[in-house]
Amino acid sequence: VTTTEFPFVIRDRVRFRDLDSSDHVNNSVYATFVEQARVAILGKGTGFILGRLELDFRDQTRHDEEIEVHTRCSRMGEKSFDLEHRVLASGRLVAEGRSVVVGFDRSTGRSRRIPEPVRRMLGVATANPEPA
Amino acid sequence: VTTTEFPFVIRDRVRFRDLDSSDHVNNSVYATFVEQARVAILGKGTGFILGRLELDFRDQTRHDEEIEVHTRCSRMGEKSFDLEHRVLASGRLVAEGRSVVVGFDRSTGRSRRIPEPVRRMLGVATANPEPA
Amino acid sequence: VTTTEFPFVIRDRVRFRDLDSSDHVNNSVYATFVEQARVAILGKGTGFILGRLELDFRDQTRHDEEIEVHTRCSRMGEKSFDLEHRVLASGRLVAEGRSVVVGFDRSTGRSRRIPEPVRRMLGVATANPEPA
Amino acid sequence: VTTTEFPFVIRDRVRFRDLDSSDHVNNSVYATFVEQARVAILGKGTGFILGRLELDFRDQTRHDEEIEVHTRCSRMGEKSFDLEHRVLASGRLVAEGRSVVVGFDRSTGRSRRIPEPVRRMLGVATANPEPA
Repeated sequence: VTTTEFPFVIRDRVRFRDLDSSDHVNNSVYATFVEQARVAILGKGTGFILGRLELDFRDQTRHDEEIEVHTRCSRMGEKSFDLEHRVLASGRLVAEGRSVVVGFDRSTGRSRRIPEPVRRMLGVATANPEPA
Repeated sequence: VTTTEFPFVIRDRVRFRDLDSSDHVNNSVYATFVEQARVAILGKGTGFILGRLELDFRDQTRHDEEIEVHTRCSRMGEKSFDLEHRVLASGRLVAEGRSVVVGFDRSTGRSRRIPEPVRRMLGVATANPEPA
Repeated sequence: VTTTEFPFVIRDRVRFRDLDSSDHVNNSVYATFVEQARVAILGKGTGFILGRLELDFRDQTRHDEEIEVHTRCSRMGEKSFDLEHRVLASGRLVAEGRSVVVGFDRSTGRSRRIPEPVRRMLGVATANPEPA
Repeated sequence: VTTTEFPFVIRDRVRFRDLDSSDHVNNSVYATFVEQARVAILGKGTGFILGRLELDFRDQTRHDEEIEVHTRCSRMGEKSFDLEHRVLASGRLVAEGRSVVVGFDRSTGRSRRIPEPVRRMLGVATANPEPA
């Protein structure tokens, strides 16, 4: 997988508190790693909510490992889009994920169209249909 | 949905620390709620690993709300099974989830067959095929 | 120690995620237990900040144990007060703590006098001097 | 404060999940930052337990800020020692802390003498008396 295919990359490092009693990174922390990617791309509190999260666990992650989350937009719809994530620890694949992000207007409490600047920034020119 | 259909129920309560800057429960905490269900059913550290986690977020959850996670086994395979979860806050549905649990032998580092007592406990008499 | 001496009691339960790789509750989670007490007494976001936290760890806490935090106001000053906490797990003392809570006006970013209703609620009739 | 005075320095970065509903880093996360320092210095699970933790909160910390924890050994006793911590965010002091670390033999469940190599590594030649 090349950088071009997953253009957004964030880095983090495993903390001792990320481990659970198995001595490996707890599954919920992968949701946090993937959230770091979303927040880096979309900002914090800017009109989106997370509709769905999928995580496939590929390998255990240990204390103090260097984390990278590689992300790309794999679907753009009218009011939602998908981010596909690859979580690497010390360079090996430890999880794959998918975030379904929904445009949301907090003032009305309703979903809203994904704005053009966000579409351009995500590099998806043509809107694909919503998922079944 | 009746209790019979989701026979395993655990209860929890939202802590202040479960909130994020949106003032609602952070998405990663739903992974923790669902983990509470898995650990209550399967025990802690007893030959299973989490292969995949899916979460569909249906509503926001607020501070101090009472949480229930209702769980059933929705698929039993040779070496893995699915748990289907419904997360309720103050009685309303806030998330649905699915855990793919894989039998795992830590001494060999390999997957293993789901033992009969676990199959009986999960109330799944007939083994269904693995997912595609 | 009688209930009268520590009039505020909250209950919680250890989650699997509260454990670290020692298989016991991580030290930072005691800060969360004590925060649950503060938020139950003072509310959430109502003009106070935490100035100092002290925790003395007396015993290890394990998965699924029932937690109680017993709290009393042990000092009332002009612009700050102390809460003294006793954290029990399955009835035994596992930690003692002290929170120094400071009155804070978010609109001005300055400390402020502890209001009379809070003083009465905390059951401290006479204001003691600030700590040295 | 010079590097010589606080010889141990670790770096971290604020995650979105570290924030609470005040939009600032939650107090329990400072315990995690300080734990990162202890684990970097002492290793993970190597014969020490945390006896006491003190945190003085000096300023709010925001999302994505660079964290440094500067640590020195400020007291060495027979069976315990103190680590003094300064937590910086984007270079400004946000918290000061103290960890009382106790030598602990997990096989016997008892305290034990701090080994010479640890004393040397902490740069404290002369053993001071235990705290009152």
